[in-house]
Amino acid sequence: MTPAVPVQITRYVAGRPTGEQPDVVVGEEPLEIRVEGRSLAVLMRTPGDDRELAAGFLLTESIVKSAKDIFDITTCVTPSGAGKGNAVDVGLAHPGSVDLSKLSRHVFTSASCGVCGKTTIDAVLKRHRPLCDPVRVAAKILLSLPQRLTREQTTFQTTGGLHACALFEASGELVAVREDVGRHNALDKLIGFALLEKLTPLSGHIVLLSGRASFEMMQKAHAAGIPIVAAISAPSSLAVAFAQEGGQTLAGFVRGRSMNVYSGFERIV
Amino acid sequence: MTPAVPVQITRYVAGRPTGEQPDVVVGEEPLEIRVEGRSLAVLMRTPGDDRELAAGFLLTESIVKSAKDIFDITTCVTPSGAGKGNAVDVGLAHPGSVDLSKLSRHVFTSASCGVCGKTTIDAVLKRHRPLCDPVRVAAKILLSLPQRLTREQTTFQTTGGLHACALFEASGELVAVREDVGRHNALDKLIGFALLEKLTPLSGHIVLLSGRASFEMMQKAHAAGIPIVAAISAPSSLAVAFAQEGGQTLAGFVRGRSMNVYSGFERIV
Repeated sequence: MTPAVPVQITRYVAGRPTGEQPDVVVGEEPLEIRVEGRSLAVLMRTPGDDRELAAGFLLTESIVKSAKDIFDITTCVTPSGAGKGNAVDVGLAHPGSVDLSKLSRHVFTSASCGVCGKTTIDAVLKRHRPLCDPVRVAAKILLSLPQRLTREQTTFQTTGGLHACALFEASGELVAVREDVGRHNALDKLIGFALLEKLTPLSGHIVLLSGRASFEMMQKAHAAGIPIVAAISAPSSLAVAFAQEGGQTLAGFVRGRSMNVYSGFERIV
Repeated sequence: MTPAVPVQITRYVAGRPTGEQPDVVVGEEPLEIRVEGRSLAVLMRTPGDDRELAAGFLLTESIVKSAKDIFDITTCVTPSGAGKGNAVDVGLAHPGSVDLSKLSRHVFTSASCGVCGKTTIDAVLKRHRPLCDPVRVAAKILLSLPQRLTREQTTFQTTGGLHACALFEASGELVAVREDVGRHNALDKLIGFALLEKLTPLSGHIVLLSGRASFEMMQKAHAAGIPIVAAISAPSSLAVAFAQEGGQTLAGFVRGRSMNVYSGFERIV
């Protein structure tokens, strides 16, 4: 399975149909994530880096804390034997120690009148303390990251359908890029890569998002210990509030020679 | 609560900081959706149109089939009484007839080697038959829709952070626009509006997506009976496959005078 899938399309140019022709679209398939054989979630993702996606998902959903908690990750093979299947099973080092009901996305405790942004932030920061990372980054390095990402992205340029996340050191050195049809998946793949390489927590690092910065994206970066988040597009109000409370630097609209810094300005020199 | 929230930012222009200044970002807050007092889901959404979001979510997740299934939707008030809270409770006309465990996103049955795109599509089409809608739309009308949407979008132009979905009649007449920080929410709000106005199933209608067309977006449109989906950006492979099997017309990269048609070409005249 490759991330680009061939299709036949009818293309309109200058308002008129130009006949059928071949094209490619970004691949999307469900991935079932199992833990100790038990089904935990089904994600709609772009095939590839499935073990990293599973590892990152388990870290950012607070099911595991480090690579030591994972015994192995097996990708099942399709019945025909033709390729990788759409399920991975994560074996845990200490199966009894993990409470699978902890899946954070669905268990925010509700107050008398429902949750609010403040309680949502507090629920996350009860599990993960605010980051006190003394790292500093030059503004010109932050501003240069989108160009670096563009050079690395390949499938996006073919299909136009992928989100990308890139991990950098504060010096601007590129560590890794991951792409996916889903923005959360792209970040989980990147974080899962770092987890399996035993690079987490990612203190001193920067993550660049090809799209927008939402609360969940900030929360995932925070769970991986990433102090600086740069987004090419806009942040949401709860992303800004979470960055401020969680001790993260958040820059948005990082384009050309301009950007907006919403939080953690002291890390930019 | 308004969709645009004020923040203080430090802006870099031409590579240099220009000092602190006020700006706005798109609002994001959790919304707890309850059914008969029982918590069903927490969505991260842009405040506003919460009753429509809840109604649309229940329709596209196959909890309800029509407006008749909903007795009432109450939005709770914040403890201070200062405004609307982040929870809505949906009362059902026949509470006993609904199986809340049917929440489709998390219950795709797993085959021996996990789910696959084909089984995912089949699972949806077991609940909702392929659409056999004889509607026809002129290519020039489809091509004109993005401009109509741009004229209607207001918060996006302020904050750059919103997804939008617009509902049109086949004649090109605009029915409604809804915006949200989350693409799924924007579509659920639009569908919920139609449900509460008793316009569903939306045969003969077109939905325009400001971003990409994924499997879940196609599935939501299909659940509302929408035969034609036009996206300003790219579709995914599973979106294309679902459109073909589900009897939907799918156009992508609808920009200026060009577009790509991936499925249901016969509806375009």
